[in-house]
Amino acid sequence: MATVSAALKSRVRRPALLEKVMKPEETLKFFKGGQYLGWSGFTGVGYPKMIPVALADHVEKNNLQGKMKFNLFVGASSGAECEDRWAELDMIDRRYPHQVGKNIKKGINEGRIRFADKHLSMFPQDLVYGYYTKDKPDNNKLDIVVVEATAITEDGWIVPGASVGATPELIQMADKIIIEVNTRIPSFEGLHDINMCTLPPNRKPYLIMNTEDRIGTTAIPIDTDKVIAVVESNRPDKTGGNTPADDKSEAIANHLIEFFEEEVKYGRLPANLLPLQSGIGNIANAVIGGLAKSRFQNVTVFTEVLQDTFLEFFDSEKLKFASATSIRFSPEGFDHFYDNWEKYKDRFLLRSQQVSNSPEVIRRLGCIAMNTPVEFDMYGHANSTLVCGSGMLNGLGGSGDFLRNSKLSVMHSPSTRPSKKDPNGVSCVVPMCSHVDQTEHDLDVFVTEQGLADLRGLSPRERAQVIIDKCTHPEYKPQLQDYFDVATKKCLAAGRGHEPQMLDKVFKMHTNLMENGTMKLDSW
Amino acid sequence: MATVSAALKSRVRRPALLEKVMKPEETLKFFKGGQYLGWSGFTGVGYPKMIPVALADHVEKNNLQGKMKFNLFVGASSGAECEDRWAELDMIDRRYPHQVGKNIKKGINEGRIRFADKHLSMFPQDLVYGYYTKDKPDNNKLDIVVVEATAITEDGWIVPGASVGATPELIQMADKIIIEVNTRIPSFEGLHDINMCTLPPNRKPYLIMNTEDRIGTTAIPIDTDKVIAVVESNRPDKTGGNTPADDKSEAIANHLIEFFEEEVKYGRLPANLLPLQSGIGNIANAVIGGLAKSRFQNVTVFTEVLQDTFLEFFDSEKLKFASATSIRFSPEGFDHFYDNWEKYKDRFLLRSQQVSNSPEVIRRLGCIAMNTPVEFDMYGHANSTLVCGSGMLNGLGGSGDFLRNSKLSVMHSPSTRPSKKDPNGVSCVVPMCSHVDQTEHDLDVFVTEQGLADLRGLSPRERAQVIIDKCTHPEYKPQLQDYFDVATKKCLAAGRGHEPQMLDKVFKMHTNLMENGTMKLDSW
Repeated sequence: MATVSAALKSRVRRPALLEKVMKPEETLKFFKGGQYLGWSGFTGVGYPKMIPVALADHVEKNNLQGKMKFNLFVGASSGAECEDRWAELDMIDRRYPHQVGKNIKKGINEGRIRFADKHLSMFPQDLVYGYYTKDKPDNNKLDIVVVEATAITEDGWIVPGASVGATPELIQMADKIIIEVNTRIPSFEGLHDINMCTLPPNRKPYLIMNTEDRIGTTAIPIDTDKVIAVVESNRPDKTGGNTPADDKSEAIANHLIEFFEEEVKYGRLPANLLPLQSGIGNIANAVIGGLAKSRFQNVTVFTEVLQDTFLEFFDSEKLKFASATSIRFSPEGFDHFYDNWEKYKDRFLLRSQQVSNSPEVIRRLGCIAMNTPVEFDMYGHANSTLVCGSGMLNGLGGSGDFLRNSKLSVMHSPSTRPSKKDPNGVSCVVPMCSHVDQTEHDLDVFVTEQGLADLRGLSPRERAQVIIDKCTHPEYKPQLQDYFDVATKKCLAAGRGHEPQMLDKVFKMHTNLMENGTMKLDSW
Repeated sequence: MATVSAALKSRVRRPALLEKVMKPEETLKFFKGGQYLGWSGFTGVGYPKMIPVALADHVEKNNLQGKMKFNLFVGASSGAECEDRWAELDMIDRRYPHQVGKNIKKGINEGRIRFADKHLSMFPQDLVYGYYTKDKPDNNKLDIVVVEATAITEDGWIVPGASVGATPELIQMADKIIIEVNTRIPSFEGLHDINMCTLPPNRKPYLIMNTEDRIGTTAIPIDTDKVIAVVESNRPDKTGGNTPADDKSEAIANHLIEFFEEEVKYGRLPANLLPLQSGIGNIANAVIGGLAKSRFQNVTVFTEVLQDTFLEFFDSEKLKFASATSIRFSPEGFDHFYDNWEKYKDRFLLRSQQVSNSPEVIRRLGCIAMNTPVEFDMYGHANSTLVCGSGMLNGLGGSGDFLRNSKLSVMHSPSTRPSKKDPNGVSCVVPMCSHVDQTEHDLDVFVTEQGLADLRGLSPRERAQVIIDKCTHPEYKPQLQDYFDVATKKCLAAGRGHEPQMLDKVFKMHTNLMENGTMKLDSW
C-alpha cells in the first residue's frame, strides 16, 4: 500500500477507501490485453492521467506494442498523453464513440483501430443496454473502469472534475473500478448534477425546464466493493490553447448576430434569445465572443462543452447561466477560473452527456445549435465526420443531438479551406456531401464568411439557389451554379427533379481534389 | 344558409355554430389563389372531403387549372380525391410535409409543386414557430384551415375523426377556420388525447411514461370567432385495401421475431418487448401479423399509424394498448372496427403527431422502430425518400423521429426489387445510399428475406461485411463484396480507410439502373 498524503486524505471522506490506495504502477497487475476498459473524461478534461500513462510506459518498456490491446470506452475524447499515446503504442483495439489526436486518427484510418462514432447522448445508454458488450464472452460488464475524482464523499460517491461525460454509465457497467483522486486541481464538489441511467420501460422524464434546473445528485453513486484501487493524481488536465478568431470567423459571427437580431425583431426569438449550444473551434469562439459584445442580455447556454470565450461571456455579465457536460478551458483559462471560483461557481453546472445532449431537453428548451461541418451541400445536408467520404476526423460528437432537436439549427463554416496546392482548394459547399451526418430535414441556416442562407420553409431547389447565392466562395460560384442548372434541367426532364443530382458527376469535385489537389474543375 | 340536418344537429353541441352552416359550394367565395391553406388529415384519414372536392370541381368547370394555386399544409397525406386531384388540376403551389399520390408525385418531380419533407414531429412546431409563413406578405397565419370533425363540443371544441395529425397546430395558426362535420362516420369522441403547441422557453415535459398515459384533452380547443363556415360531410375516408404479406415479407417477419426472442433471452428486452412502432406496407403487416401469432404477450404499441393487422393483433389478445396519431384501416377494416367499437375503444388512443412522434417520449419508452427504406448501404445508412438521389416518392414521414430515438432501430426491406427489365434489377443494398435520411449513427438492425444483420457495437468495415453476408441477394453478393474489398484496399493504403468508398464509382449501380435497367454491372 502506498503512503496516503494529507492532500489525498482531505479529499477522501470514506476512510475504508484509503485502505485501497496504491501507486499507479501497483495497479498494472489488474490489466491484461483484450479487456474492456472505461475511462472518465470528455473533450480532454476529467480523464484519468496516472494509470493510462503507467500502462503506456509498461508497454513501451516491455516492447508490448500491438500485443497488449484494449477495447476503450470514454464519453468523448481523452487527453493526448493517454489516448493518443496509447494509439501510438498500438494499445487500442476498439475505441468508441469519439476521439481526438493525430495517432489515433491515423490508427483508425489505417485500419488498426476499430472505431465507431455515435451520437454522444446515445452512447452511454447503448452501453447500459449492453450493445457494446453483447459479444464479450465472459460477461457484459466493462472489466475495469478508471475514473478521475476530485473528491470522494462519505458514502464513497465520486465527485468528478471538469467533466461528467459518460462516467455515470461507465460506472454502472463496471465490473471493477479504479479511482484516481486528483489533488492537483480543486474539488469541483457542488458543480455537478448527476443522473444514472434507468432502463425502459422504467424511464422517467428529465424535468429540466430551464438551463439551471437540477434533477440529480452532486456526486456519482458507486458500489464501493467494486473499487480495487485508489490512486493519487497530481497532474492537471492537459489542454491546449484556444483557436483564436480570425477575419473569416468574425465575418461569420457578424452575419449570425445580425440574423439573431432580425429573429428577435420578428418575434421568432425572445429578446434574450434561447439557450445556446456552441461547438468547438475558432468560429464558435468568434460567435460567443461576438455575443459577449452584443446587445443581448440574460443569455443562457445549454451545451456540451464550455471554452475560454464563455469566461469572457460570463465576465460581460450578459451570460446568465450555462449548462454543459465539460469545461475545457486552456491552462490560462483554468487558472482564471480557479482564481475566480466564487464568481463562477453558481452560474453553471455540469451534467452527464446523456442529459446535456438529451433530445428531450434540447427540444423542450428550444435551443439554438451552432456547429462547424467538414462540408455541406446545396440542398442542406452536412458532413460532420468523414473527409472525402472515407477518412475519419474526430467523429460525430453531439452535433446530431443538437442539430436535430434545436429550434434553430445553424451550420457555420468558412466557404473554402486550403488544400496543399491551392489556398481555396477545398470548397465547403459541394453538390452532395460525401458523407451525410445531418440531413436536409434537420438544418435551418448555413453561414459562411460570404453570407447567411436561411433555408426555413424552402423546397430543395429553392434552398440550392439560396446556398449558391449566399454561401459559396466566388471562385466556386459559377461551377456550382453550372452543376445545379444542368442537373435541374436533366432531372426535371426525366421526371425526377425534386432534388436534382447527376450521380455520375456528383463527386467530381472530391475526386479532383484527391487527384489534382483542388476542387476547381475545368469542366463538369 | 343551408338546412341543418338532424344528424348534423346531433353532432354539434354548440348551437351558435349551427348558424354558420353552409353548403360546400357556398364556401367557394372564401378562397382565392395564393392563399395558405391547412387541412386536417393524416395518412389519408380524417381529412376534409367536401370543400376540397367543391374547389376542384370549381377549378375544373371554370378552366382555372394552374391559375388558382394554393400553398397546402397537412399533417401528412390526405385523400386521393382531394390532394391528388388538386395536383392533377395544378392547384398546388407548395405542399408540406408529406404526400401520397401519382399526380402529386409527378407534379413534384416535374417541378410544378414546391414540396419539402420534414420529420413529422417537427413540422407542426416549425409551423407554429412561423417558419413556413415567415415570407407571407400580409401576416404569418394560415389564411383558411379546413378541418374535419366528428363532433363539436359545448365549448365549440373539435372532436377529430380517424386522425389527429397536425390539426391542433394548424388551428393554432389559422386566421379563419371551416369545419366539416362528418355525419357518415361515428363520433370518435373520447379516443383522442390532444395537446396544443407551447413555445420555448415555456414548454413543459410530455409526461407520458406508458403508451396509455393521457396528458391532454379529448377535443381541440378553438376560437369559435374564427369559424366562418360549418359544412356537413357525408363521405367516408377513402382508403384502399392493405398490401398483403408475401413470401419475402413473411421471411423478414420470421427473422425479426426470432431476433426479438433472442433479445428477450439475453435480457436486452423485457418479455413483453417494448412499445412497437411499425410503418406502412406489406412487411410491416407481416411483422405485426407474425407477432399476433407469436408467444409474446401484453405487447404495447407506440406508433404513428395503425393498419388492419393491428385489429388482428388486438383480437389475438396479445396487444395490450396502442397509441398512434391515425387509424388507417381498409374500408372493411373500418366496418369491423365500427361494428366492434366497444371492444376496441378503451385499448387505443390518438395523439397529435408532435406527441405520437416525439423524440422525448420515444426515447423514454425505449421503442422498437421498424421501417422500410428505398435502399440502405453497406455501412448502415438508409434512404427513405429519393429514388436515385433525386426523385421524390412520398417523403420522410416519421421514420427519422422513430429511428433516431428508439432503443432498437430496425430497417426491413426486400433484398431486391424488380426493374422494368430484370426481376431483381434493383438491389436494396448499395455501396452508398444515393440520398441519406437515416445515418449510420441511428440504425441498429437490417433485415431482408435473406437474413438479419445486427450492427450494434460494430465499426463500419465490420458492419459492411455483416450486411453483405446476411442481407444481400445472391445475385448481388459478389458484386458488393468486390466493391468493398477494392475500396478497403485502396482507402486503407491511402490512410483514409475508416469507411472505404470509391467516389468515382460509388453510384455506378444507380447510373447503370438508369441507363441499362439493372443494377447488375459487368465490372466496377
